[in-house]
Amino acid sequence: MEFELDEAIGVLRNTPAVVRSLLEGVADGWVRGNYGADTFSAFDVVGHLIHGERTDWIPRTRIILTHGASRPFDPFDRCAMYEADDGDSIGVLLDTFSRLRAENIDTLGGLNLTREQLSLEGEHPALGRVTLEKLIADWVVHDLNHTAQIAKAMAFQYRENVGPWRAYMSILRPAAR
Amino acid sequence: MEFELDEAIGVLRNTPAVVRSLLEGVADGWVRGNYGADTFSAFDVVGHLIHGERTDWIPRTRIILTHGASRPFDPFDRCAMYEADDGDSIGVLLDTFSRLRAENIDTLGGLNLTREQLSLEGEHPALGRVTLEKLIADWVVHDLNHTAQIAKAMAFQYRENVGPWRAYMSILRPAAR
Repeated sequence: MEFELDEAIGVLRNTPAVVRSLLEGVADGWVRGNYGADTFSAFDVVGHLIHGERTDWIPRTRIILTHGASRPFDPFDRCAMYEADDGDSIGVLLDTFSRLRAENIDTLGGLNLTREQLSLEGEHPALGRVTLEKLIADWVVHDLNHTAQIAKAMAFQYRENVGPWRAYMSILRPAAR
Repeated sequence: MEFELDEAIGVLRNTPAVVRSLLEGVADGWVRGNYGADTFSAFDVVGHLIHGERTDWIPRTRIILTHGASRPFDPFDRCAMYEADDGDSIGVLLDTFSRLRAENIDTLGGLNLTREQLSLEGEHPALGRVTLEKLIADWVVHDLNHTAQIAKAMAFQYRENVGPWRAYMSILRPAAR
């Protein structure tokens, strides 16, 4: 697909409702279970998404717009939520994610980014040169990646319960190493 | 997790909202794009879920309750939707899935299944003996499997747009063969 900012925002806007719908009223085992050593539970994923709203997407957008590639992005801590969310309920996390995402979409829309600005470059600490457009495209794919991960963590809790159907369900394959 | 019918129904009830939230208002490319030869688009997945509501889960439940393992399940056509939904809009499919799922959850709840009934056996045409409990557990995992598949089909449309971030996004790996 050609990148269109409005279309990207259309997906970003949906994600809080997607995540909330997946977890609304479900048993705690599905919220807290992961799918193997060093994997995220649904709870962890929502915390990770919150941390991204706070420290990744919009802060990196601002770095590109203000400094270009002369000021590398801060590294993103994939595990910050383990401490930050300790003791919170999933309901609190879902509300926080919805609020932060709505604010960030407002911010992004308010920047009225031009094609020229979308082609501005930033410096990723590991990946090197990227454009603002690629950053926003990755925001979209990152949402979808973690939506699929929530579904996987939930499905894995029933990996024994499905009996022989396990062979048909690709989502039940163990996490790749 | 121990299988609890109420908990399983909790996930089954959420799926129409999950699928609708993923696809609500998004650009057509995300609805219609797949992730490689012989893979489903989001549109195909919703059609497949509809076909399951009509011909798989509740019909198989009734076969087990009425005939046990003496009458094998009818095989499930994984591709029936390609013809059935030709010409429909995604909005029509989402409405149909929501309606059928609500009816089927009503039906399932109305059966007031006992532990003894959940342990009754049926005969799967390929997998052999299964229990009613395993069938319902697989209904849940099948939902989550296809939720993740919608996310994958959508993400794949931006596989080039993310540039070097592609290496970080496991959802962008091509479909397994």
